Amino acid sequence: MVWEMTSGEKDRAVVLLSGGLDSATVLAIAQDRGFLCHALSFDYGQRHRFELDSARLVAQSLGAIDHRVVRLDLSAAAGFGHSALTDEIEVPKDRPETGETPEIPATYVPARNTIFLSVALGYAETVGSFDIFLGVNAVDYSGYPDCRPEFVEAFEKLANLATAAATQGEGRFKIHAPLIEMSKGQIIRTGLALGVDYSLTHSCYDPDETGAACGRCDACRLRLAGFTDAGTSDPVKYR
Amino acid sequence: MVWEMTSGEKDRAVVLLSGGLDSATVLAIAQDRGFLCHALSFDYGQRHRFELDSARLVAQSLGAIDHRVVRLDLSAAAGFGHSALTDEIEVPKDRPETGETPEIPATYVPARNTIFLSVALGYAETVGSFDIFLGVNAVDYSGYPDCRPEFVEAFEKLANLATAAATQGEGRFKIHAPLIEMSKGQIIRTGLALGVDYSLTHSCYDPDETGAACGRCDACRLRLAGFTDAGTSDPVKYR
Repeated sequence: MVWEMTSGEKDRAVVLLSGGLDSATVLAIAQDRGFLCHALSFDYGQRHRFELDSARLVAQSLGAIDHRVVRLDLSAAAGFGHSALTDEIEVPKDRPETGETPEIPATYVPARNTIFLSVALGYAETVGSFDIFLGVNAVDYSGYPDCRPEFVEAFEKLANLATAAATQGEGRFKIHAPLIEMSKGQIIRTGLALGVDYSLTHSCYDPDETGAACGRCDACRLRLAGFTDAGTSDPVKYR
Repeated sequence: MVWEMTSGEKDRAVVLLSGGLDSATVLAIAQDRGFLCHALSFDYGQRHRFELDSARLVAQSLGAIDHRVVRLDLSAAAGFGHSALTDEIEVPKDRPETGETPEIPATYVPARNTIFLSVALGYAETVGSFDIFLGVNAVDYSGYPDCRPEFVEAFEKLANLATAAATQGEGRFKIHAPLIEMSKGQIIRTGLALGVDYSLTHSCYDPDETGAACGRCDACRLRLAGFTDAGTSDPVKYR
């Protein structure tokens, strides 16, 4: 019996990888779904570089076929931002729990996910991929507008109007946000089941010079609560 | 009599400025509409740098309040592209006239306008602008999918979902594409009426080492036909 096969090659995906817990889990999910994964990170002028080191280690450990770091300075020095992630603004600590309509905090970087997805789209078109994965989350998040399902849907629609690949009928772009409805605890349980080594990841907005996490910024608090919810402890170092 | 005024300051606009004929005209239109204009250009690894010099001269001559060049390498060397604008691929010359559904040429840069608009959005949010101008044109164009009205509309929708400024009710983003339905001749007549010095602009995809235009690539052919249609001659140097 002869099987008719259109292609022996796996589909390719572009995975936005920050080096944090969420995007590491997303890379594991994309690998588990059988994609050849191109990991993409940004050196955007973030104050702390530990996350780019983490991204490299995570991409290697999960078997991405490559890892590319795009340089695009979004700091205030380059005319952008005024964000606590890129500039000398104090990172908010010990914020009250976010409710239904959390305020947008000082760590917001203007249009960051739009910019990252746009570059991922150009990269996907270049490598012949129609699948872009990102780790946005609308449950345990910090109130960023570009983490919501309606944002992801609007970007997918744009992608299919913007590109030669889609408008010439070669395929349709899909923006995958597999974590969008998960709690942080669910994300961690999913990643652990897929073999993510969370000791390689970095989430803290305000680490010390050794990379040790503060435990008090939004990112640390969400992360720690997630590990508690998942019934295990966080393997990264806190100061 | 006392006039009640909410603000004595003009609205700000971000204007994508390539250094070409179209975007120079757009900057003149935005200035004429009374905006304080922030001109934004990209050093994206284009093979020829004359257009960045032109952008600077055009921004100065038309009275933009500033001009910023963002570095973001979209060349094949950086993992992107395979475009005749960024790589050693021959620029198409003497192509037949484009019809209703022109093919997408080798000068296409994957997702370029999506990326440029995304960065412009982040910059607009930073400077407190809700108005972004770009010089796309769906009439005398080269067949790029990201120059069509449906693309511009989809980006505007995205912008209003993606940003803190829009989702917190401070305003709504408007993507202005004032040339989109104009012929090249109309664009040139409009610019001349507004005082654009087209001798400062640069359009050619394949200039010689002095910057002289080839006269045969898509950009030159559209430009030359436009000046003929406008009843005047092109002030730039051809070889």
